[in-house]
Amino acid sequence: MIILGIDPGIAIVGYGVIEYRGNKFKVIDYGAITTPAGMKLKDRLKIIYDGVIEIIRKHKPDCIAIEELFYNNNAKTVINVAQGRAMPYLAAANTNLEIYEYTPLQVKQAVVGYGRAEKKQVQQMTKMLLNLEKVPKPDDTADALAIAVCHAHSFRMNAKLDF
Amino acid sequence: MIILGIDPGIAIVGYGVIEYRGNKFKVIDYGAITTPAGMKLKDRLKIIYDGVIEIIRKHKPDCIAIEELFYNNNAKTVINVAQGRAMPYLAAANTNLEIYEYTPLQVKQAVVGYGRAEKKQVQQMTKMLLNLEKVPKPDDTADALAIAVCHAHSFRMNAKLDF
Repeated sequence: MIILGIDPGIAIVGYGVIEYRGNKFKVIDYGAITTPAGMKLKDRLKIIYDGVIEIIRKHKPDCIAIEELFYNNNAKTVINVAQGRAMPYLAAANTNLEIYEYTPLQVKQAVVGYGRAEKKQVQQMTKMLLNLEKVPKPDDTADALAIAVCHAHSFRMNAKLDF
Repeated sequence: MIILGIDPGIAIVGYGVIEYRGNKFKVIDYGAITTPAGMKLKDRLKIIYDGVIEIIRKHKPDCIAIEELFYNNNAKTVINVAQGRAMPYLAAANTNLEIYEYTPLQVKQAVVGYGRAEKKQVQQMTKMLLNLEKVPKPDDTADALAIAVCHAHSFRMNAKLDF
């Protein structure tokens, strides 16, 4: 199973593509789609949408895993991130992919086994599971890989429950 | 000038297409794109995006006018509306249209001439200016027409300032 993990945003959209087969992970690609702050919203959204579509066309994932968005104390940020977050959803609909949402708590539990784990622990465990030399930068990319790992683990658990 | 006014949303996206020429308005089309609450987010967004693209292809507006989004007290609603609101922006980018944002205050000032006007007054004035028999339903459609009128008036004022 090839999973595209996405850490949504408007300025930086982290992505990580991993293959999960026979309980083993293989990293296929990771990085970030970035848009400059001074650019018009419509053009930033187009860069994000086109970027996600390009990743899908290139790596043909079986599904997308994305982080859920919660309200924090900055209304403007939340609105901007939500607008950016809509792009992977539309890309999923237009390429007939399922998209699965995970809360930060679920990601921590699935990756570290502990819902109150710190960001650094999640990154270190993701690095280890994926056999990476370093924690990828920016954080958004590391987070995207963690979300993909979370989906692999959740999927395995759900698959076990089904049999 | 043909203006597509949009009242953004996720369940109901109001739209109104008007022509503004020689200080006169002509209504070309109006209505609402709706998506059911139980539908997956990606599919709701696709309906909205495809709907906006269809309106653009059909009526070939010169630009889009849309209401700005502010944080209200319901975080979930704001996130959902923001995600839906991203669709007209992407549609604008993909059809090379400019998109202009107006605050509710600007809409009221441009349509009624008074920033603290009530919703009903805005609707009545929009109906009168556009020579409609009734205030269109749902409210989102009436609001979309008001946003289009706001852009026509603002554009005229800005055009005057330029000469």
